[in-house]
Order: sequence, then C-alpha cells, then structure tokens
Amino acid sequence: MTEATGAGRVRRGRGRPSRRETAAAPATRDRILEAAREEFSERGYEKTSVRGIAKAAGVDSALVHHYFGTKEQVFEAAIEVAFAPALDAPEAFAAGPREAVGERLTRFVFGVWENPTTRTPLLAIVRSAVNNDTAAAVFRRLVAAQLLRRIVGQLDVPDPELRTELAASQLIGVAILRYVIKVEPLASVDLEQLVARVAPVVQGHLTNP
Amino acid sequence: MTEATGAGRVRRGRGRPSRRETAAAPATRDRILEAAREEFSERGYEKTSVRGIAKAAGVDSALVHHYFGTKEQVFEAAIEVAFAPALDAPEAFAAGPREAVGERLTRFVFGVWENPTTRTPLLAIVRSAVNNDTAAAVFRRLVAAQLLRRIVGQLDVPDPELRTELAASQLIGVAILRYVIKVEPLASVDLEQLVARVAPVVQGHLTNP
Repeated sequence: MTEATGAGRVRRGRGRPSRRETAAAPATRDRILEAAREEFSERGYEKTSVRGIAKAAGVDSALVHHYFGTKEQVFEAAIEVAFAPALDAPEAFAAGPREAVGERLTRFVFGVWENPTTRTPLLAIVRSAVNNDTAAAVFRRLVAAQLLRRIVGQLDVPDPELRTELAASQLIGVAILRYVIKVEPLASVDLEQLVARVAPVVQGHLTNP
Repeated sequence: MTEATGAGRVRRGRGRPSRRETAAAPATRDRILEAAREEFSERGYEKTSVRGIAKAAGVDSALVHHYFGTKEQVFEAAIEVAFAPALDAPEAFAAGPREAVGERLTRFVFGVWENPTTRTPLLAIVRSAVNNDTAAAVFRRLVAAQLLRRIVGQLDVPDPELRTELAASQLIGVAILRYVIKVEPLASVDLEQLVARVAPVVQGHLTNP
C-alpha cells in the first residue's frame, strides 16, 4: 500500500523521504539502497540507471525516484552508509590522545575496507568518482566536506583542510593499490604491518608542524 | 603502401611491429597511439574498442591489430609513453643524494601529471585500472613491476617492493584527489608547497629504518 501511494507521488530533487515514510516501509527502502550499492559498485555511476536499480530491487522506477530523487541522490544515499559510523560519531577520532589520531583514522578506514559489507559502497564511490564528474562531486561533498572536515575541525592545526586531504590521499592511495588494483605485496601484507607504516604518515600530515 | 601490406598480415598477440615497420610508417603508428590514448582516457578501458580507436585515427581496425595486437596490448602501448622517461632513465632517481630520492620521484610524478600531454595517458590508466581487471593487470605490470621496482632496486633497503608501493600509494592518492576528483584546496595548492609536504613522506616510505 505504501509503495503504491509512494509511486503515485514522485518527488524529484529530494534526497530523503519523510520520517513517517521511512518508518512505513524501511524494508523496501533498504532493499533499494542495497540494490543501488551493488549496481553502482559493479557498473560504476555512468552505466547504472534508476531503472536497473529498480529492477534489481524488484520495485517500480517511480518508487526509487519517490524515495531518493535523482540518480545522483540515489548514489549519495547508497554510499552514505559506508561513512555513517564516522558521520554519526566523528568525535571518536578526536577522543583519545592527539598523537594517536592518525592511527585511529587509519584503523577506521582499513576497517571499512576489510569489511565486505562496507567495501561495496566504497568500491562504488571510488570507481564512480574517478570516471564521472557528478560522482566526483558527490565524493567531494560527502568525504571531503562532511567526514574529513568534521574530523579535522577538532584538531587545532593550521591548514586543516589541506592536511586532512593529504591524510586522506595516503589512505585512498593505499586502499586503491591494495583493494582495487591489488598490487603485490601490498595487497597481501598483514594489516598490522600496514597500519604500522601508514598511521605515522597520516598522523604526520594531520599534526606535524 | 606499408599500411596496405600491414593490414593484410594481421598478427595478434604481438605488442610491437618490427623496427623496419616502425621506421616505414611511424606517423600512422603514432596517430593510432594518440587516438588510443584519447579514447581510453575519455571512455575507460571497457567502453573503448579497437574499432573506435581505428575510426578516430582514420585507419582500418586490422591495421591497429597489426601494429599492436589485442586491445590490451594497444592499451599498454598507449600508456607506456607516459612512463617512457622513467623507463628509459631510471637511474635518474638513483643519481644524486639518497636522502633526496623521495623528492626526485615526487617531482617526476607531479611533472608528468602537470603536463597536459602526459596527463592523458595517466588518466586513461587510472580510470581504466580501477574499473577493469585487465587494465589493472596492465597497471600492475607496467607501473609496479617495471617502473617502480627498477627505481627501488637501486636503493639498498629491506622490503623494497612494499616500500615502493607505499611511496606510490601516496603519490597516486594525491594525484587522484588533485587531478581527477579535484578536491579543494588540494587541487589548487601551489606545486612547491605540495612537494614540500609529500616528498618527505615518499622519502620516508622508501628509506626510513
């Protein structure tokens, strides 16, 4: 019932349904998001269509539009889950000694990549962002503007944005070579050994004078 | 004349024509390579076809196969030019003080990215390698096996492969955020300021105890 009503009231340009709608059909909404993550990570942004996502989720395209809006908004909602833990609790990175913020951030990022569930949306955004300007804009907004700046906003350093982006560049570069392109020996090296080499670099970018 | 003869003897599975053939029609060969770089960088590996490259170069598909072999081999030849200076003179990185090898490598990589001519094949390989397993294999072979190991083979350190890949991960991560996804302020920061922050990290990965 909810689905039929929803399909009848297509609202483009809105990223989220109201709380009431979310509460009414969370299973359907989650199924669409899961299908979207799979489609975007397998095909990339350009080759993925709202129609294809709807088909994979077993719903009508209009319902996808109803819940999420445009393809860009479906994409953003689909990958947001990967960053949700950090977005919900950015203070986790600032809690604890300042000299270990690099290690906390490094462990968080590799933890997300090592987890098969959260790796899928990350693959989706990396593959899409390097190939498509719209997806790159979502990446900038979500990762750079929200996640990273909220983290570094709690560090009292000059050039916090540049520092955070350089820290992110080290983590993204390792993630791409290890998890996406799978260069050896980096792809197989023990995670603790990797953290031992990467965390000091991340720390240095964030807090070195 | 050379082209007609060449088109008649399609040899798959070979990456390069003989010296005589290269000498006979270098302009045609170069035109195909240039078209291939454009196609791969704009469309990525999967969406690019030998037919499309041939059309862009104004030649028959059979001639592309004749000169380069399979699509994978066209791809490898097309991007190899970006790394040619390093492949031809890897000693450039070892010449000079060992404590400045990080800066030399950093300046070389950013120099290639800042140059519009060599940026195109780099965009092609990065975009293709994160989206396609065949292109990723070419990346591993060309960048990891040839370029980087030849450089670090001249450094007397333990774990040279892992170190080199970590150094590369920092450079690739910065390149992706600066030149591909264009995250600010990293995309606009002065090159010298960037080198000052990145070169010590690259140096550390390569030579720190």
